[in-house]
Amino acid sequence: MNLKEIASIIGADFIGEDIEITGMNTLKDANKSEVSFVSNSKYVKEIQNSNAAAIIVDSSTKDFVPEGSVALVVNFPYWEMAALSKYFAPPLENDELPHAVIGEGTKISPKAEIANGAVIGKNCTVMAHTYVGSKAVIGDNTVLYPNVTVYRDCRIGNECVIHAGSVVGSDGFGFATNKLGEHKKIYQNGNVLIEDNVEIGSCTTVDRAVFGSTLIKKGVRIDNLVQIGHNCEIGEYSVLVAQSGVAGSTKLGRNVVMGGQAAAAGHLEIAPFSTFAARSGITKSIQQSGLTFSGFPLMEHRIWLKLQAKLAKLIK
Amino acid sequence: MNLKEIASIIGADFIGEDIEITGMNTLKDANKSEVSFVSNSKYVKEIQNSNAAAIIVDSSTKDFVPEGSVALVVNFPYWEMAALSKYFAPPLENDELPHAVIGEGTKISPKAEIANGAVIGKNCTVMAHTYVGSKAVIGDNTVLYPNVTVYRDCRIGNECVIHAGSVVGSDGFGFATNKLGEHKKIYQNGNVLIEDNVEIGSCTTVDRAVFGSTLIKKGVRIDNLVQIGHNCEIGEYSVLVAQSGVAGSTKLGRNVVMGGQAAAAGHLEIAPFSTFAARSGITKSIQQSGLTFSGFPLMEHRIWLKLQAKLAKLIK
Amino acid sequence: MNLKEIASIIGADFIGEDIEITGMNTLKDANKSEVSFVSNSKYVKEIQNSNAAAIIVDSSTKDFVPEGSVALVVNFPYWEMAALSKYFAPPLENDELPHAVIGEGTKISPKAEIANGAVIGKNCTVMAHTYVGSKAVIGDNTVLYPNVTVYRDCRIGNECVIHAGSVVGSDGFGFATNKLGEHKKIYQNGNVLIEDNVEIGSCTTVDRAVFGSTLIKKGVRIDNLVQIGHNCEIGEYSVLVAQSGVAGSTKLGRNVVMGGQAAAAGHLEIAPFSTFAARSGITKSIQQSGLTFSGFPLMEHRIWLKLQAKLAKLIK
Repeated sequence: MNLKEIASIIGADFIGEDIEITGMNTLKDANKSEVSFVSNSKYVKEIQNSNAAAIIVDSSTKDFVPEGSVALVVNFPYWEMAALSKYFAPPLENDELPHAVIGEGTKISPKAEIANGAVIGKNCTVMAHTYVGSKAVIGDNTVLYPNVTVYRDCRIGNECVIHAGSVVGSDGFGFATNKLGEHKKIYQNGNVLIEDNVEIGSCTTVDRAVFGSTLIKKGVRIDNLVQIGHNCEIGEYSVLVAQSGVAGSTKLGRNVVMGGQAAAAGHLEIAPFSTFAARSGITKSIQQSGLTFSGFPLMEHRIWLKLQAKLAKLIK
Repeated sequence: MNLKEIASIIGADFIGEDIEITGMNTLKDANKSEVSFVSNSKYVKEIQNSNAAAIIVDSSTKDFVPEGSVALVVNFPYWEMAALSKYFAPPLENDELPHAVIGEGTKISPKAEIANGAVIGKNCTVMAHTYVGSKAVIGDNTVLYPNVTVYRDCRIGNECVIHAGSVVGSDGFGFATNKLGEHKKIYQNGNVLIEDNVEIGSCTTVDRAVFGSTLIKKGVRIDNLVQIGHNCEIGEYSVLVAQSGVAGSTKLGRNVVMGGQAAAAGHLEIAPFSTFAARSGITKSIQQSGLTFSGFPLMEHRIWLKLQAKLAKLIK
Repeated sequence: MNLKEIASIIGADFIGEDIEITGMNTLKDANKSEVSFVSNSKYVKEIQNSNAAAIIVDSSTKDFVPEGSVALVVNFPYWEMAALSKYFAPPLENDELPHAVIGEGTKISPKAEIANGAVIGKNCTVMAHTYVGSKAVIGDNTVLYPNVTVYRDCRIGNECVIHAGSVVGSDGFGFATNKLGEHKKIYQNGNVLIEDNVEIGSCTTVDRAVFGSTLIKKGVRIDNLVQIGHNCEIGEYSVLVAQSGVAGSTKLGRNVVMGGQAAAAGHLEIAPFSTFAARSGITKSIQQSGLTFSGFPLMEHRIWLKLQAKLAKLIK
């Protein structure tokens, strides 16, 4: 799509040299053929440092757009970004892509569905009613149990196991909301990358990134009914126990342990080797590694024990 | 089924003119060809105002059955209602129904299953391993990702998206329990109605109503692994974040936001524009609209902050 | 596999008469043709009383191995047990087994998949996209809704209902971790046994046992999105409300009720007729039956009410 079309879709004036735009991205990650956006004047620094070809802005932020980048001025940049995201969404499936490539020794159930453009490595097992989407890539020796869904463009490494009913690459929970309270979908045009030797339990959901990738690093163990939001990064060998959840864009360091039903809010950074007891509620980033936490609000486990003792006294 | 058969199934005496009964319903909603029940003498008003053809009662409530309605007297009305519900359950599938009707431009995977009697609108996409049940109706431009299950008789509007692994119309969690602690299933003979422009994430479950409909109104956004109980009503543009849950018969007003892992008990009414922080536990109805709540027990967010400050002091 | 091979796999010295080993098991349950292991010197009693043919031990526990049992001495028994477990894992499917046996009156969707070696009783319904694994056994009059997965070797009784998207028999969350923080899978070579008249909601997960069986006893009612860990035992007529979870090896007595989002830690024993309010967090065994609990940390409900009153006072 070219910049003129984009300006027209979002209702921005555009005067200048038209160029081809290949995608959308964050201010930080956008390259010279991508369009970005800013919804909030607190991101002034990111605007000034952005390499984006064009930035969707409002009147309060337009003056920070750097030279070499086009300011596309609208009233509601976040809403218009959502509107535009639809145009960069690829088709759900594409029959014109070549048939899937299946590695030697791999066993695919006749009742599985492998979309065109997918690539599956050697010695894998793909069981009945499992779906591998367009251009998805699966490594060697990986097992997909029945009723698994791998959305288009997602990548799963070698020696992985995905249990029944799990979903890799469903859309992140992204939408803009206007003053009437109506929502507009932000198409999630990123993907999920799962590295080698990851095991995922049953009925667990890993959302695709809005831009870029949701990342599950090597050796991670995820239990059943766990939620991983869009653009999360789960560090090597981390362990997520059943019914825990990680909200969008949160990054766990390596060997983080989240107990059952624990949850982390979005946009946090959690130091390596942090341990969270069952049902911990993490709302702030953790800088120091190796500590154990409990409770909601979260506190160090030893303090939580102290609090419980105080509360026990309170009811006597 | 006629009233004589019903009396015989539940072991009630019946003298009088036999009539055809078309279904079961609540005291409030039952019409003159439906049978209702009452399990508790606190519903005296509802009995007296009911239009039901017949009401299953015990000796403590039988005298409140209005003229024009037949009292079917049993020892355990709730248990007998459960026993009876089975007789009103339609078959899971019905091969004698006509083949499904599929709208123009709609793409159905050869590995999807559309039961007889279903109707699917125009320009929809139904992906592999998805099931659309008997007499289910899907609007136009709706996407059902892989491994979705839509149970019989459920209705989904236009411009909806249902992500992989989600279930629309599974049975509500209903059963009667006797003094021995044994349970008897209450067949869930209602359905789910999803209006236009609703998006539902992956591995989310929306239960069908016991009578009537579970209702998801237009523009609602539901994330992954969310539970919606039978007979709930989710107001327009409401937002339910991952792993939240709404128990049976609770009604959310429009633009209610439930944070991750938040939950509402059953039979509540929640005012429009209420916001619940992650992991809120809602056990009472909310009358005033536009407020923000936290915690379990639930309190206004500003009070919750105060409480946390007090607790923090307690451990110093 | 014989004992010499096992010693070689785990790197233990073995001198003595070689014997055939048929499986792995706990110290308590292992028979004279099974190998067991001990990871911790607090299990001295269990070692001394074990009937296992051989026990994987380290230097601190080797002297407790009883006569008649072979001590296989390694540095990290738990890690080596994990390594060994792989060799006892049967193939995911086995084409050489006879075709599934299907009882009279049973209706199997052409889009379901029943693996070789499975046995399905009379008058069952197995709907589209459901998978029944190798050597799984299903009783009479049982309904498997669409997109259900029953893993190999699991057994489901008569008159059961499993709703869409649920998973019976996925691997328990078991692995050993070394000093580098790397994990090694413990193959879950047990199964799931579901007795008669059990109903399971949608997108619920029941993990198979590591050894032996995860057991769901007759008449149990499980709602949607519930997690049952490996080797749990759920007593007769127990009721597990949506999004609740039971961690591995916990045993619930009969008629235990767990409210929505309630959870129990692993290795507990819960007395019959215990009731847990929504979101209770159970971390200790309950000896006395018939009580009602709330909160996390858990307390008797009447005490929890008192605590909430005190906390309410605190914020005034």
